[in-house]
Amino acid sequence: MAPQTLMDKLVSLCKRRGFVFQSSEIYGGLGSVWDYGPLGAELKKNVKDRWWHAMVRARDDIEGLDSAILMHPKIWEASGHVAGFTDPLVDCRTCKARFRADRLSEFACPQKPSKHPGEHSTCDLTEPRLFNLMFKTFMGPVEEQAATIYLRPETAQGIYVNYLNVLQSSRQRIPFGIAQIGKAFRNEITPGNFIFRTREFEQMEMQFFVRPGEDTDWFERWRGLRLAWHHEIGLNPAKLRWHEHEGKELAHYAKAAYDIEYEFPFGWNEIEGIHNRTDFDLSRHQEHSGKKLEYFDQASGSRYLPFIVETSAGADRITLTLLVDAYREEQVEGETRTVLGFHPALAPIKAAVLPLVNKDAMPETAAALYNDLRKHLVCFYDDGGAIGRRYRRQDEVGTPFCITVDGQTGEDRAVTVRHRDSMHQDRVGLDQVKGYLEERLRGPGG
Amino acid sequence: MAPQTLMDKLVSLCKRRGFVFQSSEIYGGLGSVWDYGPLGAELKKNVKDRWWHAMVRARDDIEGLDSAILMHPKIWEASGHVAGFTDPLVDCRTCKARFRADRLSEFACPQKPSKHPGEHSTCDLTEPRLFNLMFKTFMGPVEEQAATIYLRPETAQGIYVNYLNVLQSSRQRIPFGIAQIGKAFRNEITPGNFIFRTREFEQMEMQFFVRPGEDTDWFERWRGLRLAWHHEIGLNPAKLRWHEHEGKELAHYAKAAYDIEYEFPFGWNEIEGIHNRTDFDLSRHQEHSGKKLEYFDQASGSRYLPFIVETSAGADRITLTLLVDAYREEQVEGETRTVLGFHPALAPIKAAVLPLVNKDAMPETAAALYNDLRKHLVCFYDDGGAIGRRYRRQDEVGTPFCITVDGQTGEDRAVTVRHRDSMHQDRVGLDQVKGYLEERLRGPGG
Repeated sequence: MAPQTLMDKLVSLCKRRGFVFQSSEIYGGLGSVWDYGPLGAELKKNVKDRWWHAMVRARDDIEGLDSAILMHPKIWEASGHVAGFTDPLVDCRTCKARFRADRLSEFACPQKPSKHPGEHSTCDLTEPRLFNLMFKTFMGPVEEQAATIYLRPETAQGIYVNYLNVLQSSRQRIPFGIAQIGKAFRNEITPGNFIFRTREFEQMEMQFFVRPGEDTDWFERWRGLRLAWHHEIGLNPAKLRWHEHEGKELAHYAKAAYDIEYEFPFGWNEIEGIHNRTDFDLSRHQEHSGKKLEYFDQASGSRYLPFIVETSAGADRITLTLLVDAYREEQVEGETRTVLGFHPALAPIKAAVLPLVNKDAMPETAAALYNDLRKHLVCFYDDGGAIGRRYRRQDEVGTPFCITVDGQTGEDRAVTVRHRDSMHQDRVGLDQVKGYLEERLRGPGG
Repeated sequence: MAPQTLMDKLVSLCKRRGFVFQSSEIYGGLGSVWDYGPLGAELKKNVKDRWWHAMVRARDDIEGLDSAILMHPKIWEASGHVAGFTDPLVDCRTCKARFRADRLSEFACPQKPSKHPGEHSTCDLTEPRLFNLMFKTFMGPVEEQAATIYLRPETAQGIYVNYLNVLQSSRQRIPFGIAQIGKAFRNEITPGNFIFRTREFEQMEMQFFVRPGEDTDWFERWRGLRLAWHHEIGLNPAKLRWHEHEGKELAHYAKAAYDIEYEFPFGWNEIEGIHNRTDFDLSRHQEHSGKKLEYFDQASGSRYLPFIVETSAGADRITLTLLVDAYREEQVEGETRTVLGFHPALAPIKAAVLPLVNKDAMPETAAALYNDLRKHLVCFYDDGGAIGRRYRRQDEVGTPFCITVDGQTGEDRAVTVRHRDSMHQDRVGLDQVKGYLEERLRGPGG
C-alpha cells in the first residue's frame, strides 16, 4: 500500500476530529463542497475574527460592510464578469470528456491515462469554447418571468457599489478603506485540493481608496501589512513568498498585482492577492449606472475618481493553510504523536481540563475550574482514558494547554499546565490559571 | 405632508448613519435585498457573536457547525421542500397581476385600489397554482449538462445530514445539540418590511437531539432559555409574546411549535421559532439516503432515532428588532434628541472619545486615550463641532459612553464619561477609563 501523503492524513484527521466533512456525505457527497465541523467552524471563525479585528476594528481608516450575495445583474455587466469571466473548455469527440483548454497537462486522457488529452492517437478535441463561471439563478416566483441574477463571484463589487453610501454615512476622507467578509461562488470546472479551490468559498476583501498618484505607495504599504498579518497568525515565513503577475497574467483591470503564495504539499499556491486596480472599477460603475462617483478632495480642491488598492484573501484557503502549516508528526517515547501546532490565538480549543483520575475530589475540582474558564475561553473537559492518551487527543486538534487536576491539587490548590509544543509542565495555582492562560493566548494585534 | 412613521424614520436613519443600505442602489436597487453598512455590519456581527457564545461556546452540550449553502439536491426531496415548499399564486386575467392566493386581503386590486383582488366586477382570477420558493441554480460548467441544485431555504438540513459526522467526531451523547449560523434563500413573492422579510437572509439555528419521550421536557426548557436570551440582549419584555401554532398552522413535521413574536410598528411578527420536530427529519434522511441514522443509547441499551427540538432565529430580524426596540425620541432642553438605546454589549460603537476643543493638549490626550481603548473596544474619535452636537450624533447611533477630554484634564488627569440614556456624567481618572468601560460593557452571559 502506498504511504499516505500529508494531504491524505490531514483530510482524514479533519473528518475524524470534526474539522471538515464532505458536504451531503450521506447522499454520496456533492463535488468539491465541504462543511466545517465543530472544530473547523471555530478555527475558521477565529481566522475571520482576527482579520476583522486587524482590518476594521483596530484601524480608524477602514469601515466594515456586509453586502448581500444577490446583486443587480447590471453590476456584472459593468464589472466585465458577464462578458469576460470565462474558462476555455474543449470536448473530446472520442471519449466525450471535457477539459480546460489551458490546463490540458493537468488532466489524463480517459482512454490512455499515461497521456494528456489530445496526445493519444484517438483523441479528437473540439476548438476551445468559453463558459461563464458565474452561477445563474432566477429572482421572482416564475422562472420565465423572473430576472436572471447571479451569485456573486467576488465580494469586491459589493464594496464598489456601496462606496458613495459608506463615504456619506461615515466621516472618512480619502485615503480610506472598506472591508467585508462573505461568501462568493464560482462554477469552476476544475475545483480541488480539499478546501483550497471550491465552488462556494468565503472571501475577506478590503478595498482601499486613494488619490491617483498615491496608489503605488499604498500598494507597497498594503503588501507589507498583509504579509505581516500572515506571519502574525503563525504561518511559517519560509513557506510564504511573493508572486508578481506579469505580462498576460496581469488582469485587464490591474496596474500591478502580487500574490502571497504558500507552499502546499500540492505546490506553491495563492492565498491572498494584493492588486492595484486603478480607477477601473469606479469608472465602469460610473459609466454603467450613470451616477457620478467622483470624490471631491478638500485638501487639493480637486475632483477625481479614486484609485483602489485591493487586498483579497480566502478564508477557506487560509484555514487550510493553517491546518497544513500546523500539521506535524513527532516521535515521543517510541510513539508517534500528531500535533496541530496552531498559534494559540487561532486554536479552536484553548485549554483542556483533565482530572487525573475520577476520584478523590479531582473531578469536582476540575469541573469547577472548567465551568469558570469556559466563560472566557473555549475549553474542553475530558475525563476518559489514560492521561497520556488524553494529551495526545488534544495535541492532535491543536489545543495549546492541558490543565491537569491531580492528587496534589487538594493540598497545594495548584494544577499542572502542560504546553502542547514543548510538553513542558508548569505548576500553577488554581486561582492563577485564568490569568496564566490569558497572558499566553493574547492574539496577534491584541 | 403626512407625518413620518417610525419605520420611515428608522429606514432613513439606517441609511444616513450607515446601518443598512439598499442593495445595488446606484443601479436602481434590487427588490428587498439590503446591505449592512459600517454600523449595521457591527451590530449584526454582535448579534451573531452573542448567539454563538450563548449557544456554542458557553455550553458543553452543543457543537458548532458551518455547512455550505450548496447541498445535494436529494436533500430537498427528503426534506419535503421540492414537493411542498410552495406558495399558491393566482393571476388576474384582466390586469395581468399576480397575487398570493392565501393573502388576497393584503393586496389592492390594480384596477380598483379600494378593493382587493377578486372583489371588483372586472376581476378574473385563475385557480391558485403552486410555485416553489427555492432558488434554483446549476452546478457544472454547461447548463444543459449541469446538475440542478438549490440555494438552501433553511440551514437546518445541513445539521441533520451532518448529525452522524458530528456525533462521531465529538464526544457528545444524547441529549446534545448542533448549532450554526448561515445564509438561506427563499424566492418570496411578498417580501417586505425593510429587513424583516428578505429573499436572502441569515439564520441562527440549533437542533437539539433528545431521547424520544424526553422531547416535551426539552421543548419547554428551550422555550424558556430562548425567551431569556431575547431579554438578555435588551429587548423590551412587554413587546415579546408567545404565539402557539395550532391546527392547520402547525407544520407537517412538527408536534408542537411556538413563535417568539415582537410587536413591530407593522404588527406582531415572529423573530424566532421553537419547534418539536420529532424524528421526522432523521427518518426522512434515513429513508432517502439509505444510511442508518439511529443512535445507540448506552444508558438505556436501546437504539432509536432521536427526536429533535429546534430553535430557529433570524439574524436580520433580530437586528431589525434591536433597531426598532432601541429607537426613541426625547425632548431635551427644547430640542428633540434621537436615541438608539441598545444594550451596551450589542452597541456597534462602545465609546466615543471627544476633545472638548482642539487646543491646549486636549486633542493629544484624547488621541492617546482613543488609541489605547480601541485595542480593546470599538471606539470612535470625533473632534468636529460643538460638544452637544457630537453627543447627539453618538446618541443617534446608540454609543453608550462619550468620553470628553476637557480643560481640567491636564490638571486632574481625569475625563468626563457621559452616559447615553441618563446623560449623567462621571469624572473618571484617565488610567481608570478602560476598567470603568469594561465593567459596564460586560455582555449578557459574560
